[in-house]
This record gives sequence, C-alpha cells and structure tokens, in this order.
Amino acid sequence: MTARTTGAVVTGLDLGGTKIAAALFAPGGGVLARHTRPTPAREGATAVLDALAEAAAAVDPGARATAVGVAAAGVVDPLSGRVTSATDSIRGWAGTALGTGLADRTGLPVACDNDVRATAGPELAALPGSRGSLLFAAVGTGVGGALAVDGRMLHGAAGIAGHLGHLPSAEAAGLPCTCGAVGHLEVIASGPGITAHYERLSGRAADRLETVAALATGGDQAAVQAITTGAAAMGRALGGLANTLGPDRVVVGGGVPRIGGLYRDALAAAFAAELMPPLRGLVPAPPLHGKDAAVRGAAALTTTLPLHHPGVHR
Amino acid sequence: MTARTTGAVVTGLDLGGTKIAAALFAPGGGVLARHTRPTPAREGATAVLDALAEAAAAVDPGARATAVGVAAAGVVDPLSGRVTSATDSIRGWAGTALGTGLADRTGLPVACDNDVRATAGPELAALPGSRGSLLFAAVGTGVGGALAVDGRMLHGAAGIAGHLGHLPSAEAAGLPCTCGAVGHLEVIASGPGITAHYERLSGRAADRLETVAALATGGDQAAVQAITTGAAAMGRALGGLANTLGPDRVVVGGGVPRIGGLYRDALAAAFAAELMPPLRGLVPAPPLHGKDAAVRGAAALTTTLPLHHPGVHR
Repeated sequence: MTARTTGAVVTGLDLGGTKIAAALFAPGGGVLARHTRPTPAREGATAVLDALAEAAAAVDPGARATAVGVAAAGVVDPLSGRVTSATDSIRGWAGTALGTGLADRTGLPVACDNDVRATAGPELAALPGSRGSLLFAAVGTGVGGALAVDGRMLHGAAGIAGHLGHLPSAEAAGLPCTCGAVGHLEVIASGPGITAHYERLSGRAADRLETVAALATGGDQAAVQAITTGAAAMGRALGGLANTLGPDRVVVGGGVPRIGGLYRDALAAAFAAELMPPLRGLVPAPPLHGKDAAVRGAAALTTTLPLHHPGVHR
Repeated sequence: MTARTTGAVVTGLDLGGTKIAAALFAPGGGVLARHTRPTPAREGATAVLDALAEAAAAVDPGARATAVGVAAAGVVDPLSGRVTSATDSIRGWAGTALGTGLADRTGLPVACDNDVRATAGPELAALPGSRGSLLFAAVGTGVGGALAVDGRMLHGAAGIAGHLGHLPSAEAAGLPCTCGAVGHLEVIASGPGITAHYERLSGRAADRLETVAALATGGDQAAVQAITTGAAAMGRALGGLANTLGPDRVVVGGGVPRIGGLYRDALAAAFAAELMPPLRGLVPAPPLHGKDAAVRGAAALTTTLPLHHPGVHR
C-alpha cells in the first residue's frame, strides 16, 4: 500500500454514472495519455464493460500496459472482482463480474475497487510510516468514503467498508434514506440533501446545490442554515468516527466542500467539538490530488490488490 | 490472528480498576492455574506493575511460561507498549510503559493491549476464513469496543480504534460526556448512563443499573424508558458502524446486556432498522467466551502482537 507508482506502465480507469475516464501511467507516475467517453449507463453491464475496454485501448494504442486498475461506483468487492450492489445509475450493474469481465476484454490482469477507496489509496500512501490511518470522505451526490487503519485500506464484508453516508445523524432525524432506513447522514449532508433541506426550510424550489450556495452568499438565512446543517452533520459524524478509528489524517473531498468557506468552517467546528483528548488538533483537510486522483488511484490498485486474470473465472 | 492457542505455556493477565486476574494456559489452551488480587489503584503505576508481576508469578511458580500477555483498561498502544491515556481509575496510569515495565519485572517478553481488544481477539479468530470482520461492543461502566476488519484487529493512531462510546448519539443530545464533548453514546448507553437517565426521567434516585432493571420488571415506565433508550442508542450506533465497516459478526458483551431481554430486544430492533440491504440478516450476538475471555484473550496477544523484551527500553 506504500507505492504511489507501479514500476510498470499501467492503465487507470474511473467509471462514473455519466463518464469513463482513462489514463496511461508511466512507471514513474507520469501521465502518458488520457481519454474520456460517456458511460453507456442505459445499455447495461455488457456495454459498460465494452466501453471500459475501449477506453483502455484508446490510451494505449501500442499495448504497453501490463495491468489495468479500475475504480467503479457502487459497492465493489476487490477479492471476487464483483459489484456487490449498486444503485440503478448504471442499469444492471449490481452483480457484474467487473474484474474478469474487463480482464477478458483487455487480455490484461485487472484490479478493481470502489472509486472512493481507489481515490483514497494515494492519500494513504502519502502518510508517513507504514502504519498510518486515514479517514477519507467524499461528499457529493452521495456521501461516500474510505477508511484505512494501521496502513491498510479496509474493505469489510461484501466490500462495504467506507460507506459513511449511512451513519445515523441527529440532523437527519425522521428523513427517509435511499437505503430504506431513516435518519442517515446522506439525506442531510449530500449535495441533493442540502438542496432538499433548503427547499423544506424556505418553501421554495432550488434546482441544485450551487443555487443554494449563491443564495447563502446573498444572505438567505434558509440557505445558510441548510448548508451549515449539512456541514455540521458531516463534521459531527466524522468526529465520532475519528474517536472510533483513530485516524492520523482526515480528508474531506467531493464537490460539496468546494461550495465555500461557510461549509468548510461549519464542518471543521462540528468535527473539532467531537474529538476525544488524544485526537485534538486533528483538522479535516482537502484531498492532495486534483482531477487525476481517481485514475491515478485506480492504476495504483494494481500494486495493492489481487489481480483478476483473463480466462480465469471464479 | 488465527491461533486461539499459543503453542507454548503462556500467562494471561487482565488488569481492571478493581482487580487483577491471571491465568496460566497450557499449549492446547487449557487453564493450568488461576489467581486474582486487588488492583492497588490508589498506589500508582509502579505498584500496579509490581502487582501484575506478582500475579504472573502466582500462577506460574515453576516458571514454565515463555511469554506474558496483558490486557489493560485505558487506551493502550501495543507497538510502543505504553498506556496512551486513561481515566483516573488507576492513579498515574496514563503514560505508563506497561510492556517494558512488566517485561523487566517478569524477565519474559510481554505483549499488551487494551482489555476489550484482547477479549475480542478470540472472537475474531473464531470467524470462518482469514479475512473476517468483527464489530465487538463492551457495554458496562463505559462503552468500549474493538473493531477487526479483513482479518485484522484495528489499533489506529495512539491505539484509539474501538472507542465506540464517543460516537455522537441523538439520544444523548445536550448531555456532557466524560471526554469533554457533548452528546456522546456513553452518556446514555453505559450502565451509569442508563441509571442517570432513569433519575432524570423519574426524579428519583437510583443506586445502580440493577435497581433500574428491577423497577422496569415491575412495570416502572421511567425505568423501561431509560433501559430501552440506552439500548436503542447502542443499537443505532452499532448499525451505523456496521454500514461503515461491513462486519461479518456483531457481538455485544459487558454487564449491561445481561440485565435482560427488554434491553437486548430494543438493541436488536434499533440495530436492524439501520442496516443497508447487503447487511440485512446481521444480528447482534452475545460473546462466545465467558469469564475467562479477558485472560484468554490476553494470552493470545503474545501470538498476534509485537513483544516487549526485558531490558529493551524504547
């Protein structure tokens, strides 16, 4: 889990609900080629696997890569190489044999994991020593995350570890969650959650989080309250998890923190208020890496996870 | 982390705030001798280390043991062998060099860890396969726990991993916690927390949890509410953690669950209500091992953790 470079030419793929990003990495970690294409999300799992293979071919016309790492949305089990569960943002995605499906199509060994864990891998590798612990949150359309303790990324049963969005949250009391439960963090702290909370508070419609953020900047108190409540819920949950896991570093990434200081300050204050004495001084930080983070992390999976080989179907 | 027996004669020590328990284990795991003595908690760390060494000598007059494992209250870092932090239930305990202090006194290599993690070790070893995940709660005077994911017990920065009592809890909103924060699980879900909640609800004094449990059996609604609220807070927090960590097994031990079915049923219902679909069917279970659990787990630490050697002071 320590290497941020692979020692070989490797392809990294990042599969999202709307687009596939690909990059070919040199042994030293430099980007040799990039490619993006739409995710054929309505066409089903076979079409998505085909598109992933085409993206891998597009960045590597000379067939230099020796392995492929793929980061995918949904709950992914890196050992079985399967998508354990997924929302319907990609049709028929749950149950897909991502590892062997892509290995068969590319003729290369494939490592796969959840996109947030993949993105967090290089953050873990950057911690000093070999036993660092990391709490990584990704706050966007949903609330995801990745947990690494004592130098190792956690996967858990069915690859579930890191699903921060389904922690109980006092701020979300009574609100139904997408998972079927009630009162989970994601309902109040995700981008759509903050937007919906603004609509409940103000009685006015809002199309998206950026609209709410602009209203808050203009002094709209319902917008301010929706943003600070979402931020406080996130900070409180992360502070409690910090007390439970003992991270050396806490990272909050995703689109939501980028809306501004109002959000980040409320999150940091709520986080700090939860910490047990040995953890005081821990401060949530932005991610180290920018837009390359997911494809870079995907490529790095080939050095830290079991590889799925062409023609080997388990 | 797989062996429940050590392959050698090993001493296990369990240090609590009021007593020290010791047992000598045969290579097959059988108990060869037992001993208990009071913890000289008011006399400071040196007296406690001396008493631990005397307990080890008492179970092993023939000096057959080749190593000592010690499970201790407080936050213990098994790598440094030090007590990172502790309440004042043992005077001057925080900062004590437990590993080397006991190695010097016994002349044997010593492994040490937090008492709850030590107790949970044999539970982890009993899971099928080598990559099992365990969520272990100990609900008593405090709310402690141990977390193991992908076959490994988690320690975290400063040995903090597993401190379940300092998760935020909606049921504890506004109540000050011993750690200095507000609204933490321990305040509402520990034995003293449930008792204090009964006092707030009823306006009547209660000396201890067993009194509240007896009142609940007799139909006292404040007692029923205090117990079910504590249980629900615990179950909800464990359900959220399950969603975040993906355990294969969830164990709830400690004195509080033994008060009866009212508590256990409320905990199980709140836990089940939180679970994401892939985890449904997971049910909190009682511990596998009885009163020997802590000393047995302490002995097993000698096979899973770094040993601290006599005369080697780091």
